[in-house]
Amino acid sequence: MTEVVIGIDIGGTNTEIGIVTGSGECLVKSSMRTDAYFDAKLFVEEIARNINEMLSNYPGSNFSGIGIGAPNGNFFKGTIEYAPNLKWRGVVHLVEMMKNHFKVPILLTNDANAAAMGEMIYGGAKNMKNFVLITLGTGLGSGFVVNGELLYGHDGFAGEFGHINAFPNGRLCGCGRLGCLETYCSASGITKTVIELLGNTEESSVLRNLRADEISSKLIYEAALKGDTIALKAFDFTCRVLGTKLADIVAITSPEAIFLFGGLAGAKEFIFSLTKKYMEESLLSIFKNKVKILPSVLPQNNAAILGAAALIKNM
Amino acid sequence: MTEVVIGIDIGGTNTEIGIVTGSGECLVKSSMRTDAYFDAKLFVEEIARNINEMLSNYPGSNFSGIGIGAPNGNFFKGTIEYAPNLKWRGVVHLVEMMKNHFKVPILLTNDANAAAMGEMIYGGAKNMKNFVLITLGTGLGSGFVVNGELLYGHDGFAGEFGHINAFPNGRLCGCGRLGCLETYCSASGITKTVIELLGNTEESSVLRNLRADEISSKLIYEAALKGDTIALKAFDFTCRVLGTKLADIVAITSPEAIFLFGGLAGAKEFIFSLTKKYMEESLLSIFKNKVKILPSVLPQNNAAILGAAALIKNM
Repeated sequence: MTEVVIGIDIGGTNTEIGIVTGSGECLVKSSMRTDAYFDAKLFVEEIARNINEMLSNYPGSNFSGIGIGAPNGNFFKGTIEYAPNLKWRGVVHLVEMMKNHFKVPILLTNDANAAAMGEMIYGGAKNMKNFVLITLGTGLGSGFVVNGELLYGHDGFAGEFGHINAFPNGRLCGCGRLGCLETYCSASGITKTVIELLGNTEESSVLRNLRADEISSKLIYEAALKGDTIALKAFDFTCRVLGTKLADIVAITSPEAIFLFGGLAGAKEFIFSLTKKYMEESLLSIFKNKVKILPSVLPQNNAAILGAAALIKNM
Repeated sequence: MTEVVIGIDIGGTNTEIGIVTGSGECLVKSSMRTDAYFDAKLFVEEIARNINEMLSNYPGSNFSGIGIGAPNGNFFKGTIEYAPNLKWRGVVHLVEMMKNHFKVPILLTNDANAAAMGEMIYGGAKNMKNFVLITLGTGLGSGFVVNGELLYGHDGFAGEFGHINAFPNGRLCGCGRLGCLETYCSASGITKTVIELLGNTEESSVLRNLRADEISSKLIYEAALKGDTIALKAFDFTCRVLGTKLADIVAITSPEAIFLFGGLAGAKEFIFSLTKKYMEESLLSIFKNKVKILPSVLPQNNAAILGAAALIKNM
């Protein structure tokens, strides 16, 4: 019998379900719309139906648990709480609802924590006990691993690096406050930076040919590859803000490495060395030249599922 | 046989040694000058002589270990590294040197970590698994407890909250960088704030009668008690900076409580409620009204010794 676990990645638009082997291979995946289900109970029923159908194709496998990554997921309570990008309001007791369908261990955490766990179990942090994983997607998520364990804190919500303050009275964040780091260091943050730079300077840029709502981190990356000054300045600013704040979390948690993951981290040549440079400039001397900034080595298309599955693997 | 441990608090000027019982009572203390020993080996010999003399008065006790708190102490390596306020340059292998004199377990950590451990074993954090202790003395030290363990990070130097950046290009810190939190939120920080306020405003203040080098946090506190506007403004500013940055570490570590300790925290009525107010204003909504700001309940005069002793108690 092959031991397998189910990894589920719940996103605002889609939910992906995968069967993962002990060595971290994703045997098969299926996808369903998250936003089609206004009722979480129906959503869970559809997940259960999907899992059972997938497992029926692998009769020789022993199914030992379900790991779930979700925005605003709480590991301690098995809940999704007040997730701004999901249609379900308030507190959703997802693990409890799943337990009506399956008798195996079911664990849930937030998506960035799941990604950190995936990196530790299957990826580049296999031999690390203290590291940070940062997802630079639409927002900025983070998972902190301390002494080989995810840092959940007292109430399960630790690791909100995206919501530390970068600039007093800065940009309005989705959380309702001003100046959160993720309004600068994320795919949407760099887009805002470009729009600001286009407004504040006279420099020529291919990005001037676009409407504000057409500008994306992908187009900024393509412009930077061609040497576009505004795009390059936007990457420089993003990395400076990120590097400076990484120096602060190094002072607090002293990680061995910081992994950058997600869409914006794909712009490797404009992100890694610059962020490292600005971080080193800001580090307390006892931390200088010690902390690596690394790309995630998980396959981008399966990373979230592997991370969710890793929760069970790490039990 | 009563089980006892030795707690040692190494400060820049004095070193205190105490015999501590299992219930956290300090039976006896002795003190020696730290700064009289240019050679760490002679310093260790004098500590050993002191310990043996103290123990000879308690023949019925079983001596089970030595815990040491020291500036820039590294738990993993048992070293004191580049401590700016000590006369010994570079890396001092203190635990190794102590082991030439004693065959019991010997552990060393930095002074703020020791204070956090003391609070967990003997003080107000007895039932807490996730909390932060902040010492507001000449500088700002911090110890983070995560999942019931001190957060040391990859290299043993985690918990440097005093050296996160509060203001870009701010005040010059002893570490050589600009704008570190401890240059604002500490006994010396509030003194600098008063001197700035005296220079920048015309307001009358009893503190105007003093030379700059006569102003101390104690005199600022006494002025605040009498309603002195400059002193009150200085406390307000200190608490605003501290509260705002505490909101950031709550987002990262999600502690159950934050303990404030040390000289400046003694100005209770001007520190606790204001710091809490500013922290709450800055908190991400999921953390609001959850995190306590508490005074340390350890006796101030023995807290450092108890903290050092707690390292052994927690083994």
